[in-house]
Amino acid sequence: MDLIKDGWFSEVSTLWPGQAMSLQVEEVLHHEKSKYQDVLVFKSKSHGNVLVLDGVIQVTERDEFSYQEMMTHVPINCHHDPKKVLIVGGGDGGAAREVLKHKNIESVTLCEIDEEVIEVSKKYLPGLASSFSNPRLTVHIGDGFEFMKKNNGAFDIIITDSSDPIGPAESLFEKSYYSLMKSALKPNGIICSQGECLWLHLEIITKMQTFCRSLFPAVDYGYCTIPTYPSGQIGFTLCSLNPDTNFKEPLRICGPEEVEEFDLRYYNSDIHKAAFILPEFARKALIPQSE
Amino acid sequence: MDLIKDGWFSEVSTLWPGQAMSLQVEEVLHHEKSKYQDVLVFKSKSHGNVLVLDGVIQVTERDEFSYQEMMTHVPINCHHDPKKVLIVGGGDGGAAREVLKHKNIESVTLCEIDEEVIEVSKKYLPGLASSFSNPRLTVHIGDGFEFMKKNNGAFDIIITDSSDPIGPAESLFEKSYYSLMKSALKPNGIICSQGECLWLHLEIITKMQTFCRSLFPAVDYGYCTIPTYPSGQIGFTLCSLNPDTNFKEPLRICGPEEVEEFDLRYYNSDIHKAAFILPEFARKALIPQSE
Repeated sequence: MDLIKDGWFSEVSTLWPGQAMSLQVEEVLHHEKSKYQDVLVFKSKSHGNVLVLDGVIQVTERDEFSYQEMMTHVPINCHHDPKKVLIVGGGDGGAAREVLKHKNIESVTLCEIDEEVIEVSKKYLPGLASSFSNPRLTVHIGDGFEFMKKNNGAFDIIITDSSDPIGPAESLFEKSYYSLMKSALKPNGIICSQGECLWLHLEIITKMQTFCRSLFPAVDYGYCTIPTYPSGQIGFTLCSLNPDTNFKEPLRICGPEEVEEFDLRYYNSDIHKAAFILPEFARKALIPQSE
Repeated sequence: MDLIKDGWFSEVSTLWPGQAMSLQVEEVLHHEKSKYQDVLVFKSKSHGNVLVLDGVIQVTERDEFSYQEMMTHVPINCHHDPKKVLIVGGGDGGAAREVLKHKNIESVTLCEIDEEVIEVSKKYLPGLASSFSNPRLTVHIGDGFEFMKKNNGAFDIIITDSSDPIGPAESLFEKSYYSLMKSALKPNGIICSQGECLWLHLEIITKMQTFCRSLFPAVDYGYCTIPTYPSGQIGFTLCSLNPDTNFKEPLRICGPEEVEEFDLRYYNSDIHKAAFILPEFARKALIPQSE
């Protein structure tokens, strides 16, 4: 795979035909095929270190915080009493870093299929992988499906921090995966999954919202801005077993002290609420027929 | 300028060092130096026709609507009784198209420095340039500064739809330009200017918000998502001579009928309000010290 040309990495994919984000490369830090995928880490000119899996940017040190903060604090702050959290994927450690900021959360399990991702993140993304030394975090190397089958009714929150629906993460965008997550939740449990971009994948998102509504009594879709993800934003699919959950209204308000204590750079209670306000073209596609 | 290589146009600029958006080119439709700038139009594989000035994407047919709708309906719906509108720049006709949807607006003047932009837009961007045949639109070819000097107190709303602060549009990001706009406004007038991206130009934005607050009693900054602008979003600087203006609260609510009638694809009243809710890093930088 010719990922880097003339000193620039370009993110070309059939998932976003005809467009590509490019980052200027200062130095390739790591490049090899793991058991599951092509793993590349480079130092960029302008975005710090960058993790790329199968040619797709997963994390840059410059803008990773928006995605990591929104994927975690949104579901956590919509749950009455979250104690046990499962992260599927998230091998860079960034989502775990954010979840562990909540002192009331007793344990976090991270189930990552590709150990190599954790290893390179420990080495090259220390700002994210610092979470791996936290005693409340347990790492399980393996398949998310298999892990959840053995952990019925075990988690208050399940966060799926996956790559796109091509390659090892493909099945994580299907109904069977959401059914399995449902069975691995405790009563009133909440899931939050990487949900693709409104501007690129409205059809996939609409399909997912529909099957989620057949499984869960409360479902929503929010998004955040993040320059190095395709088209500059990424969304998250949220489902709750508690029919009273209104994802647009956080149960815990994150005031200036918590913003300070948690060192939040993207999330605050207002942006939590605003994340669910969709542009008209997306609103029209995603609102349930009954509304 | 080697803008297209191996069939891809890449948007490289010192304004966003180390990163570039690339679009695959199907056919170059037009390329020449006008009196003011390099003007390129190409048919892209995935984003329709694309207008590029001095190497920077101005419009793609696929996503132009978000910027055009937000730059126009936000200020218009915050004004009690807008009748006369000036657009500085906007030679593609897209902003005028949106303004003219408001039947109560009596006249729109478009002051574009580069006639060539209007000509290529008429030819290659008919979905935007259709506005040029509207009898309520008057086109003035010339410099926005000079035009406003001769039109004191003439406009209810001034929209500056400009390129970035390099090249012909550089002066449009300075205090003297905002003073001049102020003098060209009627009482209670509102201005809305292209305001750069939070993720890239927070320093420029902070500086501009500060000098705007020294000139106008009501100032705010909102943004929208647009995949083909650098980092996937663009902001707008809003100022009002009316101290009661609260840009976050539109005076006219745009219900389902207006969304339908105006054929809105991005704007609705909820996204108007949400546009002003900023991520924490930007909120912290932009809130006035007194708040």
